[in-house]
Amino acid sequence: MARVFTDISISLDGYVAGPSPSLEDPLGVGGMQVHEWMFRLAAWREAHGLEGGDVGPESEVIDRNRAATGAVVMGRRMFSGGDGPWADDPNANGWWGDEPPFHTPVFVVTHHPREPLELRGTTFAFVTDGVAAAIELARAAAGDRDVSVGGGASVVQQALALGLLDELQVHTAPVLLGSGTPLFDGAAPRRLEIVETVASTHATFVRYRVA
Amino acid sequence: MARVFTDISISLDGYVAGPSPSLEDPLGVGGMQVHEWMFRLAAWREAHGLEGGDVGPESEVIDRNRAATGAVVMGRRMFSGGDGPWADDPNANGWWGDEPPFHTPVFVVTHHPREPLELRGTTFAFVTDGVAAAIELARAAAGDRDVSVGGGASVVQQALALGLLDELQVHTAPVLLGSGTPLFDGAAPRRLEIVETVASTHATFVRYRVA
Repeated sequence: MARVFTDISISLDGYVAGPSPSLEDPLGVGGMQVHEWMFRLAAWREAHGLEGGDVGPESEVIDRNRAATGAVVMGRRMFSGGDGPWADDPNANGWWGDEPPFHTPVFVVTHHPREPLELRGTTFAFVTDGVAAAIELARAAAGDRDVSVGGGASVVQQALALGLLDELQVHTAPVLLGSGTPLFDGAAPRRLEIVETVASTHATFVRYRVA
Repeated sequence: MARVFTDISISLDGYVAGPSPSLEDPLGVGGMQVHEWMFRLAAWREAHGLEGGDVGPESEVIDRNRAATGAVVMGRRMFSGGDGPWADDPNANGWWGDEPPFHTPVFVVTHHPREPLELRGTTFAFVTDGVAAAIELARAAAGDRDVSVGGGASVVQQALALGLLDELQVHTAPVLLGSGTPLFDGAAPRRLEIVETVASTHATFVRYRVA
């Protein structure tokens, strides 16, 4: 059976984004530093239509996940950009531009019903009955490929709490943010199993199997 | 100049100890799981007068730190056992038993003045004027060896905030506790530099240089 996994970046103090997100700074103050390891990689840049970039130990992780992913689940704020107040604009068109990098079906968990959106090979469907329903739809769409729970933190927390995540892939960036949006916020106590570690000077990647 | 470093274990969600510490469970509910990777190692067991144990990738880290350490700084609750109410008993004799594992001078940061204590090669001195003073005394005692800031979280947070930590060594255990004592709690935003990573299936060790 296909895996349901999340692949997400946090600061050493556990934040996926810094404080005070805004339109100019959708990842919050300092939040960009959490994702820097990724933005510099050719594997990420190519998927986002950019040239250049480095090849590092994490490149293989990005390439592998991208190849394995048959559908994506994300929260409304990840679709429409950061954690700011504009996230409540039901007509926001996403921050992924004219050519989103997914090229698979994407299921957006939201309270706002909306017609599906198709942008050059990526389809966005808006799911109003919760994370479990979105993951179920994504599983069906992905077939024997994997479902990537893209974020944000709230969707990952819900998927974990519902027992729907098979794997938690965490990149820890060497930065302290001090405040922001925590990835884990009162998670149920749970043991995990380390199945892979990829070390670099830019971030530490650990793949955990959820028991 | 000698390093001032901390070598501390956290859960994936960032806790050094679980909730509701008690005399029976000084690391709080589930907190033992954060330190399991260490308790199973021969390198740790030998230092604590126990036999047996495994050799793993982390053994070298423990041996190296132990050999490099010339003095230790710790908080009162790490001296007297966990985070519970007994920590306020000014006559508590520590939870390190008759033969503490340090075999170096230990400086305990506390509000309670107290005569020094000598236990088979480990001396405990009680410092009432704060973390910076304790680190200064430890530096002097360590000579050209390193100062280990042992914990708990509060002492590490203060040393970091005061710019007195050269290195932060973090072992992340594959467990979620959900609540407890966070290692980082409103730390000042700060970039770190990854200088070493040791992977195992029991925990992930990363050594960060504090810029």
